[in-house]
Amino acid sequence: MNGLLYSGNYPEDIKKLNDAELEQLSGEIREQLVEIVSKTGGHLASNLGIVELTLALYSFLDPYKDRIIWDVGHQSYVHKILTGRNEQMETIRQLGGLSGFPKTSESDADAFNTGHSSTSVSAALGMCRARDLKGENYNVVAVIGDGSLTGGMALEAINDAGRTNTKLTVIINDNGMSIDQNVGGMSKRLSKIRSRRGYLKAKKGVKSVLAKIPRIGKPLDRAMHKIKESIKSYFVDSKLFEDFGFKHFGPVDGHNIKAMKVVLEQAFETNGPTIIHVVTKKGKGYAPAEENPSAFHGTNPFDKETGKTVTDNTISFSKTFGTKLKYMAEEDKDIVAVTAAMPTGTGLSIFKKEFPERYFDVGIAEQHAVTLCSGMSKGGLKPYVAIYSTFLQRAYDQLLHDAAIQDVPMVIGVDRAGVCGPDGETHQGIYDLSYLNHLPNVTVAAPCCAEELAQMMDVSKGVFEKDSKMLKGPFAIRYPAKDAYSFDRDFFKKNPVEYGKGVFMNYAPIVSFDIVIIAIGKMVETAMNSVAELRKRGIRALCFNARFLAPLDDENILQAIEKCGAAITIEDGVKCGGLGSSVAELLASKGIVVPFNMIGLPDETIPHGKIGEIHKIYGMDAMSLSDAAEKLVKAKKKQDAEN
Amino acid sequence: MNGLLYSGNYPEDIKKLNDAELEQLSGEIREQLVEIVSKTGGHLASNLGIVELTLALYSFLDPYKDRIIWDVGHQSYVHKILTGRNEQMETIRQLGGLSGFPKTSESDADAFNTGHSSTSVSAALGMCRARDLKGENYNVVAVIGDGSLTGGMALEAINDAGRTNTKLTVIINDNGMSIDQNVGGMSKRLSKIRSRRGYLKAKKGVKSVLAKIPRIGKPLDRAMHKIKESIKSYFVDSKLFEDFGFKHFGPVDGHNIKAMKVVLEQAFETNGPTIIHVVTKKGKGYAPAEENPSAFHGTNPFDKETGKTVTDNTISFSKTFGTKLKYMAEEDKDIVAVTAAMPTGTGLSIFKKEFPERYFDVGIAEQHAVTLCSGMSKGGLKPYVAIYSTFLQRAYDQLLHDAAIQDVPMVIGVDRAGVCGPDGETHQGIYDLSYLNHLPNVTVAAPCCAEELAQMMDVSKGVFEKDSKMLKGPFAIRYPAKDAYSFDRDFFKKNPVEYGKGVFMNYAPIVSFDIVIIAIGKMVETAMNSVAELRKRGIRALCFNARFLAPLDDENILQAIEKCGAAITIEDGVKCGGLGSSVAELLASKGIVVPFNMIGLPDETIPHGKIGEIHKIYGMDAMSLSDAAEKLVKAKKKQDAEN
Repeated sequence: MNGLLYSGNYPEDIKKLNDAELEQLSGEIREQLVEIVSKTGGHLASNLGIVELTLALYSFLDPYKDRIIWDVGHQSYVHKILTGRNEQMETIRQLGGLSGFPKTSESDADAFNTGHSSTSVSAALGMCRARDLKGENYNVVAVIGDGSLTGGMALEAINDAGRTNTKLTVIINDNGMSIDQNVGGMSKRLSKIRSRRGYLKAKKGVKSVLAKIPRIGKPLDRAMHKIKESIKSYFVDSKLFEDFGFKHFGPVDGHNIKAMKVVLEQAFETNGPTIIHVVTKKGKGYAPAEENPSAFHGTNPFDKETGKTVTDNTISFSKTFGTKLKYMAEEDKDIVAVTAAMPTGTGLSIFKKEFPERYFDVGIAEQHAVTLCSGMSKGGLKPYVAIYSTFLQRAYDQLLHDAAIQDVPMVIGVDRAGVCGPDGETHQGIYDLSYLNHLPNVTVAAPCCAEELAQMMDVSKGVFEKDSKMLKGPFAIRYPAKDAYSFDRDFFKKNPVEYGKGVFMNYAPIVSFDIVIIAIGKMVETAMNSVAELRKRGIRALCFNARFLAPLDDENILQAIEKCGAAITIEDGVKCGGLGSSVAELLASKGIVVPFNMIGLPDETIPHGKIGEIHKIYGMDAMSLSDAAEKLVKAKKKQDAEN
Repeated sequence: MNGLLYSGNYPEDIKKLNDAELEQLSGEIREQLVEIVSKTGGHLASNLGIVELTLALYSFLDPYKDRIIWDVGHQSYVHKILTGRNEQMETIRQLGGLSGFPKTSESDADAFNTGHSSTSVSAALGMCRARDLKGENYNVVAVIGDGSLTGGMALEAINDAGRTNTKLTVIINDNGMSIDQNVGGMSKRLSKIRSRRGYLKAKKGVKSVLAKIPRIGKPLDRAMHKIKESIKSYFVDSKLFEDFGFKHFGPVDGHNIKAMKVVLEQAFETNGPTIIHVVTKKGKGYAPAEENPSAFHGTNPFDKETGKTVTDNTISFSKTFGTKLKYMAEEDKDIVAVTAAMPTGTGLSIFKKEFPERYFDVGIAEQHAVTLCSGMSKGGLKPYVAIYSTFLQRAYDQLLHDAAIQDVPMVIGVDRAGVCGPDGETHQGIYDLSYLNHLPNVTVAAPCCAEELAQMMDVSKGVFEKDSKMLKGPFAIRYPAKDAYSFDRDFFKKNPVEYGKGVFMNYAPIVSFDIVIIAIGKMVETAMNSVAELRKRGIRALCFNARFLAPLDDENILQAIEKCGAAITIEDGVKCGGLGSSVAELLASKGIVVPFNMIGLPDETIPHGKIGEIHKIYGMDAMSLSDAAEKLVKAKKKQDAEN
């Protein structure tokens, strides 16, 4: 608790520190970051990379008055430490604790909530326009990574911003995955800076940059690397920003506070839109993260001495998806895999290793990913694209317009579906069931375990056959990251997945039932636990695993409801428009009137916390489900007694 | 029926015609276009502009084998005329007739369905990758306007394409709204072409271009003009495409077939991704359209001698929105207006005229538009953004991530909501109720007439007040283009819009009711007609105008259902996730069990035709609604008799 970090009053005191003290403070912040994230898990490498840049910024800016927008937001830990939240850092990403992303509700220093990529320039430009129209005076800064520039909306914003004269600062946090190849481009840019007015002032600072640029090893992911390379070569190294009317500063070493201060001072004195190119190193200062920045991008808790993460033995749906797809691709050479910058997270790196020429990483570009798959499909390939549920939201229009309504088959692995846990609000995968359910021609399946996922993938092959009796558009399979529960594998072998059909999980042993619980995906586990609980309460509940939301297994659902006389649904998503809505619509269309309820999330903002904690809050645990089911059974019995 | 158009066997015979004959054919096609569109309405100016380019393309390509993707697709009439559909052109945009857009189900010559902007490069790249992996051999061409390049997903695709060596041709259809200012840039590019290998061959053709480039008057819309300018200056005039690895051809006069052939021949002989810059004139060859290309972009039927359209006297919701907003802005200087390239269609040109400095056209960039509004709102402005329902799909993620979950107020005019009529499948505004309904913090209102819209806009002002008891995120008001029905204005004065509250349209005169019809937006008219029809059948129906889908007026709805004992909902959108689903959820949560049904669209692809025709097909007209309501009343009476 000694040192500068705990003795200063930040962010104000940053302005009082000299360069040597700022360097010392950087070291203390890094220690603090490693200390915290090793315990809580979270985003480490990006935060280690942005320590000096944050300090340099706050040497000029007041985060409570000026507006700094951190694109994607996972690099905001340093900002949080410096804006009154150091003491609470150990609560980060836990229920009731700090968010892992900027949150305006958490601090006035957080200018805008971020989580998804490429939003910062749009939001910043909006703030600039507000400031100008209202005649106010503050700085607006968007800090955006080179990866985030691959998202189309960043360009839409840059295009709009470039034709204004507004004072907007865009900082490209170029996290240097490719310094080796870029030195040439940088030198060229530096010579441009030299010929610019104002260079004299900057000269001393800028010169020291080149000597300090770190050399970094091979990037983990070649394709993403190439995309970032090309983005950088025109956004940053070429004159693109200047063509738009931006003034260009840098490149500057993002770990040299002195150099950055010189450049920032110039930039903040300049009118109109400016761009500052800052070169940083992901994982800077912590050897395990420097060596393996991808592993320390988002990490579980780890041993800070060795950098080894606590191992997690649950089966991963994502890895199942990647592995199964690899085996399928061995049998069928038309199968290709597409990812939007998430090869590891989606398990597709397994496929890539085996079939690099049939694997496509398109960058953080979900819109393009889906329409690209449409084109591939039209050309006779069988595209499998894996995208996180929350990021697939970006491609809602493309799913509808370029695939669903024109009968274009593709298979979409909707990963990280359901309540997401510690990432919270911005990353909840709880809307996919609803936004996919109302699209025409879209199959929506959800496995309850890894075995069921593999079977669904086998079934999905039929979507590419012209004479199959399946919906002709996208075949979506949604699943969470982990397979928390292991069902009896024999059951799934005996009751294999059939297209558009669900399965009764406990039909045989009981003759008559009081209620049917209709569950989908991971909530089948909860439903089965509820069946056991209800048995204790003397209630016989039938569990129906819907397997498919669209098309819904109308026949079995109607039969079960007729048999039981009461029904309840449960799903890991918003209620509105999902499984519950579909069953309600089915009942309405058939004129069936029985006690019925639906369990799921309300249309409220859902906070971060452990998945189980969040489920419990919203009545989605086995006990709450049992209570709701019991209530319906009582209503039914009362009604029966009255008639 | 004489001339070349009716005597040739197209597209094959295009290859047999000499340049003079192709010029003659161009003239005949133009006459045919004016003839047809003057009768049917539709897109004229863009088709007049692309006649020669289409002919030049089909001098080299076989549209049945090669794949040509027409971005946004409204410029595909010439293509349709030349690919076996000339005789059917008079059925265009009518129920059962030709679509106004490319449709793979209509002809094998249509490679990909388009309608929304900026999708073509993604789809084309997908086809190239399929062709290459499958070892096939055909050309893939994306024809994209300079306006469509403002959409972010076009850049995502160009970025991905540029790092490949695949043979992809991108044709920029630069419709020359800004020739005057561009001559400088063009000359510069031409000098580059001269220094390029292959120029000798092209020289003769290219030289003739400069002399022929038409001079065009002031563009109608300055802001959009500027955006297209900046897009063009870096995409086309700058080396951006070349930086990516594209080879650049042109600019070439898009009305000089000879010149285009020279350039196209070269481009098709080139390997790797190429871009061809073609300069065309919107409305070319038909004086009224040349003079006013915006008016003839999408037009009603018109008098072909004078160019005057058949006037339409129904009140426009869009104009009401623009006019009301102008008056509101006079009172409140914080109100700003945002459009994504649709100032006229959304009525915002009315606002713009009065408050140009508070008006922002961001280009075809709905994602950026919404997040820009978030930034503006955070900065203390009150943004009103008007976007067509179908195009707002592009901003689904931004609505959720950058506005809804972070409590950022803005007002969204969701224009062209509901069944869209002749534009059909790609333009249906039938998903908004569902995709907005499940978002947290989003108000969803829908007026049944212009008076109600104006009142809702007054109410919407409250969303910007911190202590109002309204949902804190976006306030969406959805409405169709036209106000087909005029309700008694006095009724709306006596029963003004209150936040989150609906209104009984016929409460007073009848004491007890057999059923409540819960309707929203324009379906209130249908519901009222059904009330009259049901009266004839001896059934007393109560009509509840929900006004708000979110928050729903639970109190009044529950009261009415209790009173009536049966309920039916009707909405101009997909059933799943909309009003019907919300009422079903309400009933389930309260344990209320009554005969209930929901009327709306199924999750099927909905074709083009008149709005009334489409409604009838799906049982959404007053007679079908009455039939469905009668059935419920009978079920209720039977049930009552049994108890």
